[in-house]
Amino acid sequence: MSEHHTYKKLEIVGSSKVSIEDAVCNAIAECSKSVKNMDWFEVVETRGHIVDGKVAHFQVTLKIGFRIENS
Amino acid sequence: MSEHHTYKKLEIVGSSKVSIEDAVCNAIAECSKSVKNMDWFEVVETRGHIVDGKVAHFQVTLKIGFRIENS
Amino acid sequence: MSEHHTYKKLEIVGSSKVSIEDAVCNAIAECSKSVKNMDWFEVVETRGHIVDGKVAHFQVTLKIGFRIENS
Amino acid sequence: MSEHHTYKKLEIVGSSKVSIEDAVCNAIAECSKSVKNMDWFEVVETRGHIVDGKVAHFQVTLKIGFRIENS
Amino acid sequence: MSEHHTYKKLEIVGSSKVSIEDAVCNAIAECSKSVKNMDWFEVVETRGHIVDGKVAHFQVTLKIGFRIENS
Amino acid sequence: MSEHHTYKKLEIVGSSKVSIEDAVCNAIAECSKSVKNMDWFEVVETRGHIVDGKVAHFQVTLKIGFRIENS
Amino acid sequence: MSEHHTYKKLEIVGSSKVSIEDAVCNAIAECSKSVKNMDWFEVVETRGHIVDGKVAHFQVTLKIGFRIENS
Amino acid sequence: MSEHHTYKKLEIVGSSKVSIEDAVCNAIAECSKSVKNMDWFEVVETRGHIVDGKVAHFQVTLKIGFRIENS
Amino acid sequence: MSEHHTYKKLEIVGSSKVSIEDAVCNAIAECSKSVKNMDWFEVVETRGHIVDGKVAHFQVTLKIGFRIENS
Amino acid sequence: MSEHHTYKKLEIVGSSKVSIEDAVCNAIAECSKSVKNMDWFEVVETRGHIVDGKVAHFQVTLKIGFRIENS
Amino acid sequence: MSEHHTYKKLEIVGSSKVSIEDAVCNAIAECSKSVKNMDWFEVVETRGHIVDGKVAHFQVTLKIGFRIENS
Amino acid sequence: MSEHHTYKKLEIVGSSKVSIEDAVCNAIAECSKSVKNMDWFEVVETRGHIVDGKVAHFQVTLKIGFRIENS
Repeated sequence: MSEHHTYKKLEIVGSSKVSIEDAVCNAIAECSKSVKNMDWFEVVETRGHIVDGKVAHFQVTLKIGFRIENS
Repeated sequence: MSEHHTYKKLEIVGSSKVSIEDAVCNAIAECSKSVKNMDWFEVVETRGHIVDGKVAHFQVTLKIGFRIENS
Repeated sequence: MSEHHTYKKLEIVGSSKVSIEDAVCNAIAECSKSVKNMDWFEVVETRGHIVDGKVAHFQVTLKIGFRIENS
Repeated sequence: MSEHHTYKKLEIVGSSKVSIEDAVCNAIAECSKSVKNMDWFEVVETRGHIVDGKVAHFQVTLKIGFRIENS
Repeated sequence: MSEHHTYKKLEIVGSSKVSIEDAVCNAIAECSKSVKNMDWFEVVETRGHIVDGKVAHFQVTLKIGFRIENS
Repeated sequence: MSEHHTYKKLEIVGSSKVSIEDAVCNAIAECSKSVKNMDWFEVVETRGHIVDGKVAHFQVTLKIGFRIENS
Repeated sequence: MSEHHTYKKLEIVGSSKVSIEDAVCNAIAECSKSVKNMDWFEVVETRGHIVDGKVAHFQVTLKIGFRIENS
Repeated sequence: MSEHHTYKKLEIVGSSKVSIEDAVCNAIAECSKSVKNMDWFEVVETRGHIVDGKVAHFQVTLKIGFRIENS
Repeated sequence: MSEHHTYKKLEIVGSSKVSIEDAVCNAIAECSKSVKNMDWFEVVETRGHIVDGKVAHFQVTLKIGFRIENS
Repeated sequence: MSEHHTYKKLEIVGSSKVSIEDAVCNAIAECSKSVKNMDWFEVVETRGHIVDGKVAHFQVTLKIGFRIENS
Repeated sequence: MSEHHTYKKLEIVGSSKVSIEDAVCNAIAECSKSVKNMDWFEVVETRGHIVDGKVAHFQVTLKIGFRIENS
Repeated sequence: MSEHHTYKKLEIVGSSKVSIEDAVCNAIAECSKSVKNMDWFEVVETRGHIVDGKVAHFQVTLKIGFRIENS
């Protein structure tokens, strides 16, 4: 095993009708379909849509860090 | 109808004893009393008051974007 | 009593398996063991660990402001 | 006349199918319907919508400064 | 009385020939003509005009937070 | 159809001898060769090369957001 | 004497009814009760409270750098 | 020839009645009267004056990088 | 006279034992010895030295904008 | 050959027990296994792990720009 | 053992005549005299003194995160 | 001797095939050919060129502060 690892960061926007945490989890769940070795996330931006005077979706932009395989 | 819309952004601080999402919703509910055509929000800052060593209120500063009527 | 107060700000990272709010509360509860007169907090950063493709912990960095005694 | 003026700043989002400058001008034209004494603008953000793989609208967020009457 | 308040923030530029503090006070005095329940201000930018090699005006951009009535 | 969508953001630098808008369009056109469901862009940075005392290319860094298929 | 020094930075909020400079001085005076070898300060934020439409206090957040003894 | 070059950056504000690109070109043309070896520019700020409710000038702040001769 | 002006910005640090405003004025006075047509300044940073537990100097970093002659 | 190129930027975190430069080189070496036409990098963040009171790894986040083939 | 940890962050400035890495290590070595459980650092600022036209010291500002005991 | 000094800041980009520190030193050495009384530097940006999948040059942007003679 190498003495040092290398990580890549992706920028993803998750959304949820329920909560900020749920939007984070939705983004990570979607990302996990194609990305292995996810290690951490950083919230970059929190925003959302308003419909009929109420929050329709929370939208959370994340950076997700994952280890590059065999690095 | 015009080919392009114009939006205005307001800066509002909502508060809640319960959660960040609730503070967002309270701000939007208050804003909806006087503003129509609200379209999106952006979280600018999250902070709160501490009383007796516990969170008393979450305070969330939002920018709220709404379409200017007839624009 | 003095006509003006002085405050100090500490930077703390709280974590929680449950939610962002819970991580905030955990940081403040820990801080209250040694700090009196806490007055407000500001969220500086929200991030977290991912284990097995799921959020393991939310990690929230706060600045906590407290009044310096007798100031 | 007072020795000093006071200005207010509004945040507006203009859009255009054509160009960034046109989005700026559209925002200012819309704003001029209700605001007098506009003096300067600052571009805060430039973004846009993509439809069918092409730019559909440029969207430019401006701050517009205007002198408060009689100030 | 509601359990939570909502605040709005305005962006104002005050000016003064004398000092930064005076520019802040001028902006707030002007704002107080039309806004009630002002609660706090935040200095966003400090700049000024130079005429004949000397400061002619200090110009201070503030955000002013006020409680929305009945919120 | 899912109740919530997930988006990914790519960072692209387009260039043009003509204009900022043209650099934006070139970046999106190149990106559209391999990416579907592009939805929005955000201008991150505008710069350029100077050759013989004149602008040789405008270079515009964009973030492009697209919906992840079946999300 | 060591060939290199190490410094620590504290974050303090001073307040004053009079001026920004006075709020800086109040913060440093309070800090000097417990901290030696203070070397420099950096203004991080300037804000204040408004009472009855007038500035009640200027509040200035500082970072204060001091040399760690024997470093 | 040296193995490494050194560059200097100047901050210039160009203006134009026509467009953002034209303001960039005007700044670079003016700068080329006294500066050689200009290599790149970075847009720092875009703003402008409004007269009679219309854009009078676009004002674009640039950093211009040029190689120091014989470096 | 040209239809458009070009400005250059310099970055200067003024200091004063007395006040922030005085540090600004000292920087501009020094700058006026070699620069003509100064038009505006922007405060970039405010800091200072502490000696014997008291403010020894306020140090204010300014950008100063001046019109390039004959532009 | 096209008159304009398009570039893509990736965000990578390299690590090293030795130095910041070594962490940069490790990230680029790993990236070069799958990416061609790399042209430049930008350091976004420098941090590291501490074990037993000593630096265990430097961790450097880079953006790496590469030309899109045939663009 | 608790299900969640709490961390505190300190801001320290290390210096070195040799290198940026050495300044980091000096800061951490000094900090380790009084702080246990240090876990990570973040470089906040890199600067230095110049004497006789040469670098005399590199000065690196770090945030150091450490776990609060028994948290 | 005056009771207060005035400083000017220049923005310089140094490069090196070897290290970040060497790029800093190269910039300062070049600058010392024409500038006296250099007092401090601040690292603004660290980037570099990649050739054949390897770092060709580190490029470090500095601000260099120097005292204005007789100020």
